[in-house]
Amino acid sequence: MEWDEKTVRTLNEECGVFGVWNHPQANRVAFFGLHALQHRGQAGAGITCGDKNGLRNFRGIGLLSQVFDNPIDLESLEGDRSIGHVRYATNGSHDNLNNFQPFLFHFYDQDIALAHNGNITNAKSLRKELEVAGAVFNSSSDSEVLVHLIRHSKEKSFYEKLEDSLRKIQGGFNYVVLTKEALIGAVDPNSFRPLVIGKMKNGAYILTSETCALHVVGAEFVQNIHAGHYAIINDDGIDIRPYTNETMVAIEAMEYIYFARPDSDIASINVHSARKAMGRQLAIEKPSPASVDMVIGVPNSSLSAATGYAEQSGIPYEMGLVKNQYVARTFIEPTQELREQGVRKKLSAVVGVVEGKSIVLVDDSIVRGTTMKRLILLLREAGAREVHVRISSPPFRFPNYYGIDMSTSSELLAANFTIKEMCTYLGSDSLEFLSVDGTIKSIGVNFDAPHKGLCISAFTGEYPAPLGDYKTGLELQLTDIQKRILRGENVDE
Amino acid sequence: MEWDEKTVRTLNEECGVFGVWNHPQANRVAFFGLHALQHRGQAGAGITCGDKNGLRNFRGIGLLSQVFDNPIDLESLEGDRSIGHVRYATNGSHDNLNNFQPFLFHFYDQDIALAHNGNITNAKSLRKELEVAGAVFNSSSDSEVLVHLIRHSKEKSFYEKLEDSLRKIQGGFNYVVLTKEALIGAVDPNSFRPLVIGKMKNGAYILTSETCALHVVGAEFVQNIHAGHYAIINDDGIDIRPYTNETMVAIEAMEYIYFARPDSDIASINVHSARKAMGRQLAIEKPSPASVDMVIGVPNSSLSAATGYAEQSGIPYEMGLVKNQYVARTFIEPTQELREQGVRKKLSAVVGVVEGKSIVLVDDSIVRGTTMKRLILLLREAGAREVHVRISSPPFRFPNYYGIDMSTSSELLAANFTIKEMCTYLGSDSLEFLSVDGTIKSIGVNFDAPHKGLCISAFTGEYPAPLGDYKTGLELQLTDIQKRILRGENVDE
Amino acid sequence: MEWDEKTVRTLNEECGVFGVWNHPQANRVAFFGLHALQHRGQAGAGITCGDKNGLRNFRGIGLLSQVFDNPIDLESLEGDRSIGHVRYATNGSHDNLNNFQPFLFHFYDQDIALAHNGNITNAKSLRKELEVAGAVFNSSSDSEVLVHLIRHSKEKSFYEKLEDSLRKIQGGFNYVVLTKEALIGAVDPNSFRPLVIGKMKNGAYILTSETCALHVVGAEFVQNIHAGHYAIINDDGIDIRPYTNETMVAIEAMEYIYFARPDSDIASINVHSARKAMGRQLAIEKPSPASVDMVIGVPNSSLSAATGYAEQSGIPYEMGLVKNQYVARTFIEPTQELREQGVRKKLSAVVGVVEGKSIVLVDDSIVRGTTMKRLILLLREAGAREVHVRISSPPFRFPNYYGIDMSTSSELLAANFTIKEMCTYLGSDSLEFLSVDGTIKSIGVNFDAPHKGLCISAFTGEYPAPLGDYKTGLELQLTDIQKRILRGENVDE
Amino acid sequence: MEWDEKTVRTLNEECGVFGVWNHPQANRVAFFGLHALQHRGQAGAGITCGDKNGLRNFRGIGLLSQVFDNPIDLESLEGDRSIGHVRYATNGSHDNLNNFQPFLFHFYDQDIALAHNGNITNAKSLRKELEVAGAVFNSSSDSEVLVHLIRHSKEKSFYEKLEDSLRKIQGGFNYVVLTKEALIGAVDPNSFRPLVIGKMKNGAYILTSETCALHVVGAEFVQNIHAGHYAIINDDGIDIRPYTNETMVAIEAMEYIYFARPDSDIASINVHSARKAMGRQLAIEKPSPASVDMVIGVPNSSLSAATGYAEQSGIPYEMGLVKNQYVARTFIEPTQELREQGVRKKLSAVVGVVEGKSIVLVDDSIVRGTTMKRLILLLREAGAREVHVRISSPPFRFPNYYGIDMSTSSELLAANFTIKEMCTYLGSDSLEFLSVDGTIKSIGVNFDAPHKGLCISAFTGEYPAPLGDYKTGLELQLTDIQKRILRGENVDE
Repeated sequence: MEWDEKTVRTLNEECGVFGVWNHPQANRVAFFGLHALQHRGQAGAGITCGDKNGLRNFRGIGLLSQVFDNPIDLESLEGDRSIGHVRYATNGSHDNLNNFQPFLFHFYDQDIALAHNGNITNAKSLRKELEVAGAVFNSSSDSEVLVHLIRHSKEKSFYEKLEDSLRKIQGGFNYVVLTKEALIGAVDPNSFRPLVIGKMKNGAYILTSETCALHVVGAEFVQNIHAGHYAIINDDGIDIRPYTNETMVAIEAMEYIYFARPDSDIASINVHSARKAMGRQLAIEKPSPASVDMVIGVPNSSLSAATGYAEQSGIPYEMGLVKNQYVARTFIEPTQELREQGVRKKLSAVVGVVEGKSIVLVDDSIVRGTTMKRLILLLREAGAREVHVRISSPPFRFPNYYGIDMSTSSELLAANFTIKEMCTYLGSDSLEFLSVDGTIKSIGVNFDAPHKGLCISAFTGEYPAPLGDYKTGLELQLTDIQKRILRGENVDE
Repeated sequence: MEWDEKTVRTLNEECGVFGVWNHPQANRVAFFGLHALQHRGQAGAGITCGDKNGLRNFRGIGLLSQVFDNPIDLESLEGDRSIGHVRYATNGSHDNLNNFQPFLFHFYDQDIALAHNGNITNAKSLRKELEVAGAVFNSSSDSEVLVHLIRHSKEKSFYEKLEDSLRKIQGGFNYVVLTKEALIGAVDPNSFRPLVIGKMKNGAYILTSETCALHVVGAEFVQNIHAGHYAIINDDGIDIRPYTNETMVAIEAMEYIYFARPDSDIASINVHSARKAMGRQLAIEKPSPASVDMVIGVPNSSLSAATGYAEQSGIPYEMGLVKNQYVARTFIEPTQELREQGVRKKLSAVVGVVEGKSIVLVDDSIVRGTTMKRLILLLREAGAREVHVRISSPPFRFPNYYGIDMSTSSELLAANFTIKEMCTYLGSDSLEFLSVDGTIKSIGVNFDAPHKGLCISAFTGEYPAPLGDYKTGLELQLTDIQKRILRGENVDE
Repeated sequence: MEWDEKTVRTLNEECGVFGVWNHPQANRVAFFGLHALQHRGQAGAGITCGDKNGLRNFRGIGLLSQVFDNPIDLESLEGDRSIGHVRYATNGSHDNLNNFQPFLFHFYDQDIALAHNGNITNAKSLRKELEVAGAVFNSSSDSEVLVHLIRHSKEKSFYEKLEDSLRKIQGGFNYVVLTKEALIGAVDPNSFRPLVIGKMKNGAYILTSETCALHVVGAEFVQNIHAGHYAIINDDGIDIRPYTNETMVAIEAMEYIYFARPDSDIASINVHSARKAMGRQLAIEKPSPASVDMVIGVPNSSLSAATGYAEQSGIPYEMGLVKNQYVARTFIEPTQELREQGVRKKLSAVVGVVEGKSIVLVDDSIVRGTTMKRLILLLREAGAREVHVRISSPPFRFPNYYGIDMSTSSELLAANFTIKEMCTYLGSDSLEFLSVDGTIKSIGVNFDAPHKGLCISAFTGEYPAPLGDYKTGLELQLTDIQKRILRGENVDE
Repeated sequence: MEWDEKTVRTLNEECGVFGVWNHPQANRVAFFGLHALQHRGQAGAGITCGDKNGLRNFRGIGLLSQVFDNPIDLESLEGDRSIGHVRYATNGSHDNLNNFQPFLFHFYDQDIALAHNGNITNAKSLRKELEVAGAVFNSSSDSEVLVHLIRHSKEKSFYEKLEDSLRKIQGGFNYVVLTKEALIGAVDPNSFRPLVIGKMKNGAYILTSETCALHVVGAEFVQNIHAGHYAIINDDGIDIRPYTNETMVAIEAMEYIYFARPDSDIASINVHSARKAMGRQLAIEKPSPASVDMVIGVPNSSLSAATGYAEQSGIPYEMGLVKNQYVARTFIEPTQELREQGVRKKLSAVVGVVEGKSIVLVDDSIVRGTTMKRLILLLREAGAREVHVRISSPPFRFPNYYGIDMSTSSELLAANFTIKEMCTYLGSDSLEFLSVDGTIKSIGVNFDAPHKGLCISAFTGEYPAPLGDYKTGLELQLTDIQKRILRGENVDE
């Protein structure tokens, strides 16, 4: 069995967005709001701020605190309205700063700033169309397409142009837009990921990717922006309008499983509670052998599921893996010997806990499987007798095209192998996943839409929104496992 | 009841030390070893490396990954022997780089590098004596005193001079010393904190403050260096010698309670297991009211104790507080309004979990109480009905003089108030602490020494080592609570 | 007499451009070529490099050596063709990096990079027209207008589009453009400033603002690109084409007087020699009193003229002023007292030379006069008996709109005062300027064009190219002196 | 004839020192004073500042403006007394910051800061003696020896200890010392280089290596500190005392020839004037052939001598070489081809001036000859017909041990070859040097001491101060040329 272990990829969310309207220190509110969204992107950050006279922008590489390491840069962003962005990936060159968001454009008749979370599946086609019509793109980012659509639109008013433009865009997107007149938040026709409105005690309005940022700035939840809608926030209050009627709720299951912070609510469901419920359901569906001594979770994202599993099964929950909280980016490579001996900058096994024990190891997901394989080896080196792996989500078998950085089938272990083969590859004593139905049930969403309003494309290959420019690519690359699943076969039996 | 809330202090460990002998890439081994000790100090770091021909040094401000952000700086530290240090505090000026360790001194007849973890109680007196004899100190650090003592010693050989010098030093210290001839590790007469020897498969030797660093570099535990001993490691192997017979084991209880990483073993006892046992014992000694719905731990250090408490009591363990993993240093201050509304960059309450619930909140310790007070308020704002606080250690009533940054009585809540008063101040529905005996029993050390070899001075004011220059200060500043405890009274009844 | 002394402005050139075609290390050739042009702009720099497969860009703030302080950034610019730019001014925010050149645009059908030296007088109008047609500008720089014109052009081929676009642009411009197919250099219809082609021994072609950069990279001068022409350089060699017939040579006199490096040739006339001739002519036109002991030049740009003056007049040339070669940007302000006492970070008077002496002080030009006023005071404080000022160019009485940062009449001393008034303001014992005719004669250009092909608009207000968007502004702001000059009066008699 | 051309060395001065007493903004006065001394050292800089309560220090790598690029660092140095230092060389590692000066030491009974300019010839011996007595050196710098001598001295008062210590030090040194009580300046028994006292209008006192720094801060010259003396400056005024009677004035000729700024006076003789006089004398001693068209100086240090030569000979002075004023440190290496073609980042020949001409090229000195060889080649490539080299100082035939970085005979061209051989090596049409007597006469010093008080050891090998630890080394390494000179032979005939 061959599997390229070189590329250690982890799931990455495509960014977080935040906006504030009518706060005398909009820059600071944006800073602390984005800080709470930092888990959605660590590669870059930016804040646009201004007032009715104009907007200013500051962007940079790295964590928010690195971008604004000189307080003067934040102070200089004066004004009462602001949007901000944290970005998940970079290509390393500081000159590509113009790929960082928010984008800010000054026209003779208006200023437009925008920040985007998601992935536009027909961006390449739209860009080519626009370029043929004379458009000059500044960045290599898909997100920029919106501003060109708006400026090329034949509609009359700005909001008609905006609606016209949003209707042309396919895929997953939350757009936060700032002009001198209003703060705008727009959600794609499937509402793949949350965009919520909050309100501070002083009357300022907040837009945020996750509710955790509301708590941090002391704002109260007002409402979600629903699929196919956009909100105009200005001194007259909130005005929410549909730009399309062709909507179908399909909230990204990944947000519950892995991405969102446990203290956020998505569609009014708490993320930690959903994860714990998935852990409980997993214990019911896939119990562990009687020989097992303890439940261990992979820190930090799997701890909710692991305690759920432990409580449901009655097996003690132990800290068998420790995460080094000081995992910084470093260019220092370990020696070959250190690598072979299992140098662990990020995770360590607790010998005193696992030695001689049989373990249920709960993780929230498997992407490439590389990390899990190493963890199992690490636990065995620390003396674990048995390692039974339980995953609190179904196998990830299809790539995501709506904004999660998991777009190649060749990177997905479960797109290439059956569970049985994966178990052999990982070296675990057993390997089990939560069922798709158990996932939907545990999360507890209940929309009048397929799968109760959950996007489960990663498990089944059913894509709720058009794949646009990716469609042909996907079809050409289908793995045998994927083909069999699309034919309705149960590949794991 | 008045209490200065301005200074938010947390417990800080005085540094971590690491050494390696006879590895072709000693610099990298030191880097990854120190990385595992980063929790012991984040203010600065340094590595000395070399071979029989000489030693070179590189030090800097911040986390290890920041100090060595340019890989060339690490590469330039060639050689097969190395020591390193992570430092807990700084005064902010880059010019005080010479307070960072390791210190490296070049003499006409030898090179000496040293790194120190601990606090020397008679440093001021020794320094004055040495200065009167002509010594010129380079740093304001107490640690430097050792090299002056060695160079002023009238003994003949280097090791006799070293022993002579170590005998003059009082307090708590682990010294790691590197010369062109040997790697040396020395432990104070009470072995307040661990210094252990490990061995890599290729034969290289390791010295480290905690065993977690052994796992990271793939080394196996060989032995602890005991109280009043020092180890000479060179190509002949390990030679451990006593430099004094006046020893008394008194392992710092704080290491088990708070400081050490849970995957480390101290005196062959796993730290996570000790903490979980303290949580269990706390549940036995101080059970919670029947009304309670859930156990919540303060992330991350209290999670072991909280799960112990939950398992012993049978109350479900929930994630009611979430720690933002991206807590970076920032100079951006929240607005007054954000501050008042409880902006939480570091910790957030999970509304969906705690709303309407009665909670047992388990923390490992209370120092000033400021953080705990805010957490309780945070939980109440998130809708918690009751908050019962259980602390898995006894009240910290006396300052520490042996290397923990907790040296002023005025900073210790429990040095100034009874438990009942503290409960009022914190705003908790109840407040209980683990007993001293329960602490000793749960940790499980068993030396033939007072308190089975544990230093419990923070709880009782019994100091196992001379207080030296601090003695008078302490006596002048004794609080009423402290005086009553020293008179043998039970202040909490 | 009032004169705002706060703003100390000096003449600044609008940038330097450089290009190389067909050199295996085009990035390094561009680096060293730009280094020789650094005097044309110190605020920012950038290099685009690539091959037939695509182009990459790197830009940054500060001197070239600061932008490329990490050699990796230059190394990463692989390829055999390159263009580069040094920029004269910045607004200080690192986020405005997208105002730095070269600009690089990736289209579905081509890559275009461009760098610009000059000023487009109808840029604002063109930009508005383009924005109305849907264009989204990335920068606030006028230079970007070219790429939008090209992409919006209705012509067929790229070169037809380019010609079409160049014909729409008014003002002064040298454009260096790089595509995957060719290196292109275009010169405005007046050839206000030089753009020359050179050739290296290995066959590589060079484009550069000044010939001094040819010497530095070991290239030989091939030819100038003439007014209204553009050169296409590719593997077939050089192809120079006119894009307009409406041309009139008007080489910027400022290039000879002040901007260009003395070792450059412009229109085959050496700059140092032209300056020395101006100094000689000045000595003939405006001799100094018999009482004078020595000639002193203002370092460094006036030394050529000063030695010419000295040799012609027979008066000894002395070093009465010294320039500190370490004049770096600093944010440290002198104390009020130091300021008043004449703190001179940049220039110092040599007491031992000037004390008790009568001096002719030769400078190449007067803009605001602020520096000259301070120099005279400095010389008097150092003991100079008399200071007779001789300027080796005519008074600057009109702003420049073609690329020199001298665009406001209110900044020009001679636009507001007569020579006699200026002499009083400066505090000199006498003040004389070179005549316009003497300037033309000394430089020695000899084109079949007004003023023998020299642009003398700064002295006379005759603007050879349309003023476009600036026209109304200028007319509204004419000073009395300017009005009188435009009426043909001699204001200085 | 073999000559290692790899190492391009230039003469470097060993640092500049500055001090100020009793100024409310001593930090800024020190900053601007040191700025005027920047030519004496560009590798590092530092300032100590304080008041009667204590002293603080800030040091860093690079130019003064780089060290203090954040104004806060200078602002933090509060107080009314200050010393500062600019340093000539570094080994590149930021960790060796403790080799940068001023050194600041805090003792239980006093603070001592010191900065040093010069070289101590018996430093190694003194350091060993001190280390044997227990001293621990912080730096690898010789300068540190003074503080150890003071603290080990058996004398009673601080000033007696200081005098005692100064008497033990051999070689060349200017020490500037700051305590909480006084500002002190000490000069070696030969006064190899200047240390002068100035006074500001507000009564503040200044100590400086060169008088040019007095002008910059608006101070007036008060007096020189003479050989074997030290000055105590405090609120009582200036108190100058001798610490030895064994003195002999021997002012370093290099200061006049090359190092000092032309606007400084040394021993009341202006440096520019001395250089111009050397140029005139050179024209008398070593006239040029009748065929010569022009005199060219090597910018910038040789321009004074070159104009002197031109005026005396009546040959026109031209700008045949141009110095790029933006010569920054860069790690970008030219390609081999660019190197071979004579890439000149620093100096360029002006083709339009030198083509077809016969030239006298005047330089102030020849050390290795590498630069001169390249300049001659550069001029020939630019079309020069003949290049006659005239050096306005005698051949440098012996190394310097008193503070000039020219300490190895193998680096001195004239220590290895006769003038005739050098001419062949350099490729010049003729080569002539100023005589030793002509040098002494032109400079015009007139002390009652050998060579009228000038140190001419570089030309004759007569060393006025003990060579200490260098003595044996020198004797072992004498070249044939040096041996012949010491035997009294005329090697050039």
